[in-house]
Amino acid sequence: MLITELGEFGLIERIKRVLGEKGPGEIVGIGDDTAVLEVSGDKVLLATCDAQIEGQHFLRDQITPRQLGQRAAAINLSDIAAMGGVPRYALASLALPDHLTVEFIEEVYRGMKEFLGRFGANLAGGNLARSLGGIFVDIALLGEVAPELVLLRSRAQPGDRVLVTGTLGNAAAGLQILLGKVNPGDLKVEPLVQAHLTPEPQVRAGQLLAKLRCVTAMIDVSDGLAGDMTHICESSQVGVEIWMDQLPISEVTRRLAEQNGKNPLDWALYGGEDYQLLFTAPPQEVERIISSVRGEIGLEVTPVGGVLKDLREKRLVRRDGVSFPLEAKSWDHFAKSRGQ
Amino acid sequence: MLITELGEFGLIERIKRVLGEKGPGEIVGIGDDTAVLEVSGDKVLLATCDAQIEGQHFLRDQITPRQLGQRAAAINLSDIAAMGGVPRYALASLALPDHLTVEFIEEVYRGMKEFLGRFGANLAGGNLARSLGGIFVDIALLGEVAPELVLLRSRAQPGDRVLVTGTLGNAAAGLQILLGKVNPGDLKVEPLVQAHLTPEPQVRAGQLLAKLRCVTAMIDVSDGLAGDMTHICESSQVGVEIWMDQLPISEVTRRLAEQNGKNPLDWALYGGEDYQLLFTAPPQEVERIISSVRGEIGLEVTPVGGVLKDLREKRLVRRDGVSFPLEAKSWDHFAKSRGQ
Repeated sequence: MLITELGEFGLIERIKRVLGEKGPGEIVGIGDDTAVLEVSGDKVLLATCDAQIEGQHFLRDQITPRQLGQRAAAINLSDIAAMGGVPRYALASLALPDHLTVEFIEEVYRGMKEFLGRFGANLAGGNLARSLGGIFVDIALLGEVAPELVLLRSRAQPGDRVLVTGTLGNAAAGLQILLGKVNPGDLKVEPLVQAHLTPEPQVRAGQLLAKLRCVTAMIDVSDGLAGDMTHICESSQVGVEIWMDQLPISEVTRRLAEQNGKNPLDWALYGGEDYQLLFTAPPQEVERIISSVRGEIGLEVTPVGGVLKDLREKRLVRRDGVSFPLEAKSWDHFAKSRGQ
Repeated sequence: MLITELGEFGLIERIKRVLGEKGPGEIVGIGDDTAVLEVSGDKVLLATCDAQIEGQHFLRDQITPRQLGQRAAAINLSDIAAMGGVPRYALASLALPDHLTVEFIEEVYRGMKEFLGRFGANLAGGNLARSLGGIFVDIALLGEVAPELVLLRSRAQPGDRVLVTGTLGNAAAGLQILLGKVNPGDLKVEPLVQAHLTPEPQVRAGQLLAKLRCVTAMIDVSDGLAGDMTHICESSQVGVEIWMDQLPISEVTRRLAEQNGKNPLDWALYGGEDYQLLFTAPPQEVERIISSVRGEIGLEVTPVGGVLKDLREKRLVRRDGVSFPLEAKSWDHFAKSRGQ
């Protein structure tokens, strides 16, 4: 059924059915213009928003509507994760072309609900509008954290180690596959495509890292390690060296790059959209961090560099000691030319 | 300067300059992916979002960028007003075509800041993305209210009066002028155009009405009185009669309609976008409400109907007692045909 046949309020009723009961803390939820929500008075509120725009962030023939909903939720959950926060409430603002089916929209909402629900958050409200162009899914996500646990970008200290969760470059490799720019051959690349389409936000790792009380600065890798590390450097007024050969790149990504004459470091450093956590901590805490995250979440953490004193010093260091400037060649929505 | 020349992060720096210092309660504001905000533990949180989409909600040659920012803020402030709430923090998610100038974007932010600031709210975060179509301005607005003061749509009682602040139909008349569908002749219609472009959110009236503790249900008039009254009826499971001849319509709107062979009631009932407050209260409270709102805010409140017992009874009543069904012929973004 087309959404024009059902109308806005009919569509809201269908969405309400998809979303089911109100979540914990929701006094007034979906269906009203304004959600009424309980907050914990001893916490600070975290608030973030991020949009998925057709043609810009996704292509409709390469992502299912459910994956689109999951992806829109994931990128916002990742921002709350980077603060060590607990995601609680989401508002979804959608602009939709007339010709979409109700079933398509329901799948988008199912995807959002699934990913939010996995981390204890609910869709508490939103907005629907008609789009004269493509699909636009904008989510505002609210979370909470105890004020003493909040992790900022601005407190990295010279001498700290730089660490990252999981692997880097999978999402960029997955995008290259979707765009037909590399040939996977016999490689099992489904996880790479999935890493691009529905990244896994490291919410539990973020919360655990906050509780360890030794992380000095944290950000999620949305723009690429080089770009996001630069954000930490500028906020903290420090420099950095990144150990090129230590970057955690998966075997399949390495092989895909090799078979296609690409450098996997490009994907790891500048690809972006991995949604791993990049953070700094004193060297004496590194072992405890690695074993805690491995033990409690089953996720690897890798030391990939060190924090330097001088903001102007930002470099990549190769095993043989040769170093290169670390350029913030990250995703920039309005740059004249793009590195990707 | 074009935004492509400055890049995303340069643009964020310019926006930071427009917005100035962090507002009260902002621990981390603009520039980070996630805002960190103080909330009052004895309050409930209000959260709403609403978008302004080029070609759908505005035309670029009929609104200045500053007015666009003001309008995007106003429609969200109105949703917080309808809950009796205090607006606090906004997140602005913009999707922008490449060819816009930096000065245009700065003006949009100035407009948002002005309208938010007038009611004590700050722009605490947001997102920028490239749009392949037109301009898209989506605001998520957070507010607070004491839980005992929150005004819902769902508590209207049979026997209550229906009341509305200000006048109805000005915004619809202003839109007709902008679209060239009516000829203003010698009439001074600038206030009507302004009512459409930059509506005045009734935030102070909403807060005052909440404090009077006698309002049973409230909503803002965004879809037109007929449509928004229907929302109250359905949420409260009540019927309504609207006294056609009592609707507060400004003299200039009446004259404009008359000179152009239009019925001003159509604009008042179905035009929408007046962003006045529509609410219900027991009859014995009507005088106190009218004199309080007039005395403290200088705003007129008009009784326009009564709440009935049966949800199926929704009617317009003329002075001579003849009645007509009240159709919810309001703005519906996905309806096949529109009443407007």
